[in-house]
Amino acid sequence: MDIKKEFGKRLNQLRKDRKMSQEKLAELSELNRPYISAIEQGKRNVSLEVISKLAQALDIEIKQFFEA
Amino acid sequence: MDIKKEFGKRLNQLRKDRKMSQEKLAELSELNRPYISAIEQGKRNVSLEVISKLAQALDIEIKQFFEA
Repeated sequence: MDIKKEFGKRLNQLRKDRKMSQEKLAELSELNRPYISAIEQGKRNVSLEVISKLAQALDIEIKQFFEA
Repeated sequence: MDIKKEFGKRLNQLRKDRKMSQEKLAELSELNRPYISAIEQGKRNVSLEVISKLAQALDIEIKQFFEA
């Protein structure tokens, strides 16, 4: 699987584990909901700063995005 | 420390641990040496695909960039 798809799948999983909506994640990360949706679909090559915002919004460490 | 500086510092450390030059890392990752240098200085907001290329070139898992 490519890295964008892997990351998107993992983001989706971590968000759902927390019972958080895409809207809530968008609000907390200061990103917009369609962008969150595109990331989860593996369609965005996100940057370090976006990865960092998503980790903060989910209250996790960045490395958790890259653990199985 | 901001995430770009943290990532750059960690990349520099992992590269030196392997006694690999910036030139060699550039060659293996299909990036260019000035770009590697800028990343190590914390000046680049690298993307997932670049992070993935660097991990492959260093023969590590992506999560190792985000571990202390």
